[in-house]
Amino acid sequence: MAERPTPHLVVDADVLESNVARMAAFARQHGLALRPHAKTHKSPLVGRLQLAVGAVGLTVATVSEAEVFADGGAEDLFVAFPLWVDSAKGARLRDLAARVRLTIGVDSVEAVQALSAELPGVAVLVEVDCGHHRSGIDPEAAGAVGRAARDAGLDVLGAFTFPGHSYAPGAGSAVAREESDALRAAAASLSTQGIEPSVLSGGSTPSVANIDDDVATEVRPGVYVFGDAQQWELGSCFPEDIALTCAATVVSHAGRRVVLDAGSKVLGADRATYSTGFGRLLDHPDARIVLLSEHHAVLTWPDAPFPPLGSRLRVVPNHVCSAVNLADQLVIVRAGAGEETWPVAARGANT
Amino acid sequence: MAERPTPHLVVDADVLESNVARMAAFARQHGLALRPHAKTHKSPLVGRLQLAVGAVGLTVATVSEAEVFADGGAEDLFVAFPLWVDSAKGARLRDLAARVRLTIGVDSVEAVQALSAELPGVAVLVEVDCGHHRSGIDPEAAGAVGRAARDAGLDVLGAFTFPGHSYAPGAGSAVAREESDALRAAAASLSTQGIEPSVLSGGSTPSVANIDDDVATEVRPGVYVFGDAQQWELGSCFPEDIALTCAATVVSHAGRRVVLDAGSKVLGADRATYSTGFGRLLDHPDARIVLLSEHHAVLTWPDAPFPPLGSRLRVVPNHVCSAVNLADQLVIVRAGAGEETWPVAARGANT
Repeated sequence: MAERPTPHLVVDADVLESNVARMAAFARQHGLALRPHAKTHKSPLVGRLQLAVGAVGLTVATVSEAEVFADGGAEDLFVAFPLWVDSAKGARLRDLAARVRLTIGVDSVEAVQALSAELPGVAVLVEVDCGHHRSGIDPEAAGAVGRAARDAGLDVLGAFTFPGHSYAPGAGSAVAREESDALRAAAASLSTQGIEPSVLSGGSTPSVANIDDDVATEVRPGVYVFGDAQQWELGSCFPEDIALTCAATVVSHAGRRVVLDAGSKVLGADRATYSTGFGRLLDHPDARIVLLSEHHAVLTWPDAPFPPLGSRLRVVPNHVCSAVNLADQLVIVRAGAGEETWPVAARGANT
Repeated sequence: MAERPTPHLVVDADVLESNVARMAAFARQHGLALRPHAKTHKSPLVGRLQLAVGAVGLTVATVSEAEVFADGGAEDLFVAFPLWVDSAKGARLRDLAARVRLTIGVDSVEAVQALSAELPGVAVLVEVDCGHHRSGIDPEAAGAVGRAARDAGLDVLGAFTFPGHSYAPGAGSAVAREESDALRAAAASLSTQGIEPSVLSGGSTPSVANIDDDVATEVRPGVYVFGDAQQWELGSCFPEDIALTCAATVVSHAGRRVVLDAGSKVLGADRATYSTGFGRLLDHPDARIVLLSEHHAVLTWPDAPFPPLGSRLRVVPNHVCSAVNLADQLVIVRAGAGEETWPVAARGANT
């Protein structure tokens, strides 16, 4: 049989299942509800693995992701995004709410009003900022938004935050403290309005190990299912936890370089300030991608000899969520079993 | 009618056609063959516009892109990539060669041998490095690879280079000189082996205006069809030349920030060292995207007042090739006419 053409994304099913089980055990041990962010895998089949070991539901970023996971059998979805709900989005959300237990993020009184006009009574979590400075209001303002939501007839479950600034070397534990502080302050602010939160949701892959389980009730890590070069370099996964790689072929040795046929159109162009390159090689930890074009990766290769032209290497993308969103399917391999392919059903589901 | 949900990519057809016509006129005026790189638009419909005004053929980066454009009616395709041709790729290339005039890039004797075993007699261009240090051999070595190709029975048309280091502020004219020097040296090297090149191909959007038309016979710009924030910041297009934008909605004002629902999964995560942010706003040149997540863009907004929640803005991606490759379709608008959608037929065509 001819080899599958490169580049393509390969998932080691044994590593994936081990990652899924380990995070479920962590959450159970800490009394935390686990609601994994499905934006990483965009695959209802991976979502089912997570739900099978005890996830309470899934997190999504967009209405179209929610639609794909509802179609795939999910029953409880949280849209962790401050949606602006116009009439078209309202109609889609009503259809979803008829099929699944739906919760939506809000971070302003205006958004609450727009949402309640379209989806009276829907469950919401108030988004608060714990220092990442993206969406999310100051935790002390959670009560005002929560009250507006309650007054508009929405079901205010509590608050959520995303500690995205945990994506920095050594930041995990300090950011987890800020996250816990923000959720505690949000709870206090909601409480002043007579709202006793049942859900205080946080948790990203780099920070989840340090979350304060006396405050948070739920965590929403995403990347842990696959791992990636960012997590490897942040120390939040080991190379042996990396379940997803990109199979790539050595196409050029020109100028004593090693050039692969995997570029930003399969790996993603993400490069964090702390990243040591545009991606890593799973089996050659000293190699680095120092130049990334759309269809070329140029490597430094400290080890002799060079990998031969035509040989295949396993590339670890910097940010696996970006790589998955560029693929139509994942090639699933399992020790002692044949390959299968799983569709990236929510690829491109941005609306 | 409900508004189309954001985020989505919109192309101003009038600006697109003006860009296509202007580059065709430039090439004609300089006696250069124009072979636009179709990786930017991945759309046979855009390719037809380019061919209709005199492009001699199209450039692609992968065999699967070539397949899409052949299916879309293209008759002359150059794969500007040092393909490693195994038996599976060989079979696909033979099928293509039966349908279109096909030319393939090579940059090693080994690749020449692998290619000639699968596609005897196919046309090739030797890739040479003009300073970008990606694929491509030293121009002085072009003769050795060209001779190996000729000896293997391939049809050696000449040489090509990609001046990717023209993507730096002020680099365009100096890099165009390096490009011309490399093509001249490649021609001389081929000539020592009795190969008189009929094709010497160069040209990227930032450097094409400065190419030496006494040396080059052909140019392969891609991005010029749409423009993007990189070209805007490099000075190789004006804002009024930008044909493609991402329609995005303001979803949050939290923390006195302006947050849009367009993130790296629609814009791409590209950020060159010279870029002033993760993207620009076409109608607000002083605004910058200072933080980009998968589904959020956080703006600085020097002008008062803030754009209202729910309002729509036109985002200019940093690198339009990446944005297009994330979309299933482009929404085509034309003054005085309705919208239509064009499929991004070669999206994800990486193999």
